[in-house]
Amino acid sequence: MSREDSKKKLKDFGLTLVKQAEGGQNPFMDVPIRALSNIVFNQKSKTITLGDKSSKRYFFNVAHVRKFVQTVEAAATAKEMIGENKHLSLRQTFYRMRRTIPGTDIDIVDEQEESNKAIEDLELITGLSREELHINANKNGSVAGKVVIEDKGDVIDWSKLGSGGWAIPSNVEEIKFKKVSAKFVIYMEKAAMWERLHEDRLWDKMDCIIMASQGQATRGIRRLLERLHHEYKLPVYVLVDGDPWGAYIYSVLKYGSISLAHISEKLAIPGVRFLGLSAEDVTKYGLQKHKIKFQPVDIARIKQVRKYAWFKDNKAWQNQFDLWEKFGGKVELDALVNKGISFVSETYIPDKIRKKEWIE
Amino acid sequence: MSREDSKKKLKDFGLTLVKQAEGGQNPFMDVPIRALSNIVFNQKSKTITLGDKSSKRYFFNVAHVRKFVQTVEAAATAKEMIGENKHLSLRQTFYRMRRTIPGTDIDIVDEQEESNKAIEDLELITGLSREELHINANKNGSVAGKVVIEDKGDVIDWSKLGSGGWAIPSNVEEIKFKKVSAKFVIYMEKAAMWERLHEDRLWDKMDCIIMASQGQATRGIRRLLERLHHEYKLPVYVLVDGDPWGAYIYSVLKYGSISLAHISEKLAIPGVRFLGLSAEDVTKYGLQKHKIKFQPVDIARIKQVRKYAWFKDNKAWQNQFDLWEKFGGKVELDALVNKGISFVSETYIPDKIRKKEWIE
Repeated sequence: MSREDSKKKLKDFGLTLVKQAEGGQNPFMDVPIRALSNIVFNQKSKTITLGDKSSKRYFFNVAHVRKFVQTVEAAATAKEMIGENKHLSLRQTFYRMRRTIPGTDIDIVDEQEESNKAIEDLELITGLSREELHINANKNGSVAGKVVIEDKGDVIDWSKLGSGGWAIPSNVEEIKFKKVSAKFVIYMEKAAMWERLHEDRLWDKMDCIIMASQGQATRGIRRLLERLHHEYKLPVYVLVDGDPWGAYIYSVLKYGSISLAHISEKLAIPGVRFLGLSAEDVTKYGLQKHKIKFQPVDIARIKQVRKYAWFKDNKAWQNQFDLWEKFGGKVELDALVNKGISFVSETYIPDKIRKKEWIE
Repeated sequence: MSREDSKKKLKDFGLTLVKQAEGGQNPFMDVPIRALSNIVFNQKSKTITLGDKSSKRYFFNVAHVRKFVQTVEAAATAKEMIGENKHLSLRQTFYRMRRTIPGTDIDIVDEQEESNKAIEDLELITGLSREELHINANKNGSVAGKVVIEDKGDVIDWSKLGSGGWAIPSNVEEIKFKKVSAKFVIYMEKAAMWERLHEDRLWDKMDCIIMASQGQATRGIRRLLERLHHEYKLPVYVLVDGDPWGAYIYSVLKYGSISLAHISEKLAIPGVRFLGLSAEDVTKYGLQKHKIKFQPVDIARIKQVRKYAWFKDNKAWQNQFDLWEKFGGKVELDALVNKGISFVSETYIPDKIRKKEWIE
């Protein structure tokens, strides 16, 4: 959606409220409900999505008015940013929105929690994503591989960026792909593993892209993976530690997440494949001695994760969970280094992809 | 130091032990002590450095032998990596070192804590840095600005990398600076502020470099700042939140830190200047309403930080601490956005640098 379209949506949102007021009505907005009770797993699209429950928020209602005004202020702030073609983070947007209502000693927002909620509501009301509202998420992560992009007038070759790679921005909506020679993407959560694969030039040897966050995948990374998958049909292989947390990271990328259910169609990536570490890898590569015994919290997490709608009827995954429960511990991806410094890029990854030993 | 020199140092370390054994001596190594009792603030070089206390570690000593063997194994692993010209993270090095001693059921290392300590000891014994031992620290952060570098055969122009910038690697020792037109560096801890300055193209307008971690500065970032300062005499301006924690971040970059005292000469940057947020900025820019009241932990931290050797005789800093204590709260850098989306890059930074309103 263009900036003009986004601005129009925000303007229309305001005009509707003005019309209601001018017509003698109590101005209101329809806010879709973001709660577990309104989350569904869509078996057809295989995404976690929001149901159709919503609630009305009125201006002349003591319980509603504060949130009402905050949502309108969020819209005004987003309109300012789109107009100036600038972006702010959530924290910065909070400070931008924070002002005292003239003639009172009341601030529009006192805590960031309030502006965050107002922005989420605005996303739901207008159908505009945070990216389209010009509100940035965290910036994190690096990428290298056989792709050339154009961004802000610069042509950037992801295969010619030395040992660092390209730093992934928080917002990747306006990036243009000029040339994509890569055949797939490998995504991992640990930058240290990315550096291992990058030093081995895995992306060069296997015609691919390697991408890592440091910690949880940011929206920028998820959108970049999603665009590469949908625009270029690239499969996305996920490399994580062998434990229920790794399985969940994979599922968030593939199906979406509860907290971002309203934007699943933009974030969920059906082409995501779990490359490892699988329970079978532990035996196959003799990694038993690197077992880190499960704590009660890990065992509880397996029981919880295996019941999720997107896992519960999946035989391959139920088998994984059985094997992990039996093994009684996790094994980290980094343990593969024990087999050889470059074992993961020279043997583990090429073998698994060639033999199609991923899990979906 | 070249790879050959590093390898030779490791070999010499091993040869000394062999000679001791062949000479009928109990093999031992001299390990400098890394404890607060052996940390000094060198008033002349203005760096936090290690004193000259050391202790002997013997092979034939039940209390010493495990650490002795671990240190030797760390040296062997580093030598392997240097030989193959490959790098591993601390976690990966732990897994690489972890093996069962033949004929026993004893593992050389059971916990990463053990390999970390062995690596630190090896640094101290050989005088080789972690970078020279090919053991990577965390990877994090982005940079943009008027610099062209060469790295791994790629020529990378930091001014032509779109909205993302160059992702800073964990090890920057082998980077060659091809062209440095920047006149100074601005470093900040928050990637969101970096994106704000980058969108405003501050580095272009002010002929500088902008660099950010996301959280604590990694060793890669500190080495990069240090190299730009020492090789090109660039001042480094630090932008942090206005509170004792911000003051400490500044001091770590400038003087070094207690935990890395043995490598201060490679990490401390005398040219670091505190650009803000200062206590005076709060009044000057009317940021009082954005005060986040100090918690007891913040107040205790001010009392602690102001007594550090590098702050206690510094009038400008003692004045800052007085003002913060009186104000009774912190103010975040992001609060400047309240004055205007681009206020920080159009007014705040240029004004402060022009009027030399930094603190040292």
